[in-house]
Amino acid sequence: MPRSSFPAAKPSALSPTTRPTPSAPDLREACVQAARDVIAEVGVEALSLRDVARRLGVSHQAPYRHYPSREHLLAEVMRRCFEQFAAHLDTRDQPEAPMDELRSLGERYLTYAQAHPLEYRLMFGTPWPGPAEHPHLIRAATHAFDALRGVLKRVHGAGAAQRLAVEADAMFIWSTMHGLAGVLSSSLMPHLGLHANSRKQAAQQVLNRVGATLAAPRG
Amino acid sequence: MPRSSFPAAKPSALSPTTRPTPSAPDLREACVQAARDVIAEVGVEALSLRDVARRLGVSHQAPYRHYPSREHLLAEVMRRCFEQFAAHLDTRDQPEAPMDELRSLGERYLTYAQAHPLEYRLMFGTPWPGPAEHPHLIRAATHAFDALRGVLKRVHGAGAAQRLAVEADAMFIWSTMHGLAGVLSSSLMPHLGLHANSRKQAAQQVLNRVGATLAAPRG
Repeated sequence: MPRSSFPAAKPSALSPTTRPTPSAPDLREACVQAARDVIAEVGVEALSLRDVARRLGVSHQAPYRHYPSREHLLAEVMRRCFEQFAAHLDTRDQPEAPMDELRSLGERYLTYAQAHPLEYRLMFGTPWPGPAEHPHLIRAATHAFDALRGVLKRVHGAGAAQRLAVEADAMFIWSTMHGLAGVLSSSLMPHLGLHANSRKQAAQQVLNRVGATLAAPRG
Repeated sequence: MPRSSFPAAKPSALSPTTRPTPSAPDLREACVQAARDVIAEVGVEALSLRDVARRLGVSHQAPYRHYPSREHLLAEVMRRCFEQFAAHLDTRDQPEAPMDELRSLGERYLTYAQAHPLEYRLMFGTPWPGPAEHPHLIRAATHAFDALRGVLKRVHGAGAAQRLAVEADAMFIWSTMHGLAGVLSSSLMPHLGLHANSRKQAAQQVLNRVGATLAAPRG
């Protein structure tokens, strides 16, 4: 699985050969990075605080000082994914025409999914950490979703009367972008006998279609 | 992971307690079922012919009589998923108005994804078996995709001049349905502060939007 630009901990806390026992704040950070490594190498199902402790060369109890459970550590890993994702979405163009902003947002969504497949899958393709509510994670996820909701408020209006229209189109556009990210990376694509242009232009064509839909009367 | 209605082998070839050594045609079938069990229990990455042989109580070499490699067995498992999926899509309503048929196709797509998450993920969420071409698998996958392509030919026309329009909308609709299936099952959905109606009606709203898009002028 590709290593990606997940925010790195200090190298001194991670190097397996020269690593000293991490100090408390370093350990908190090193756990996040080690968890991310476990997820990249063997999948999120295999994540455990015990395995994280072993990788860091600390006692089995040490990670519990910072994370009450494996789920809390996973929530922190995911929170950072959502933060990084939201920051990427926030680099979109913000022109006066909301439809232009929407297109730029869609393009940012797709470039993130393509550049960060591990983080993307973790955010949108794996079960939510249970059983607590993890408010920091929810806040980060909601912030990312609010990028879309915010542009759609510019399209439809921000009042209570427009709420359902905004949310219906948020579901529609999120679905389409999420699915497009999956379809573009699908092993199936080269096997369907599609015209080369259909494959090459799929992303732009789908963004065109989304734009046309928003301009059409609501069904 | 839920057990689902994957076409079952004869029980006599599978029962761990009373199982006799499978005969050749039974073994071919039993390998598929055992592979499917491995995938359900520990994930597709863990699939190996050695593990399949161990589960069936046959020699390590026995599965090779029917499957030259792990990839060929995986291709056969996936081929059956696509066959089952295509058969499910083929139960759609086929009314005179192509837009009505398209909606029914979308609904069938979503009910399959919801009822068969394991098969769905295997078809659309995991790498294609390599390195051979697996023509039977490609044929089964193409047959499923042709259900969508066929309805869109009724919408746009079946000529060479309409090919790109048909394929662009096939990409758009597949993306939207694939993404919607993912969004509806996403752990994130309950945490986004959406109106209860927005969540309950998401599928119908998105299908409405797709319908409106197809009726709108092409962007």
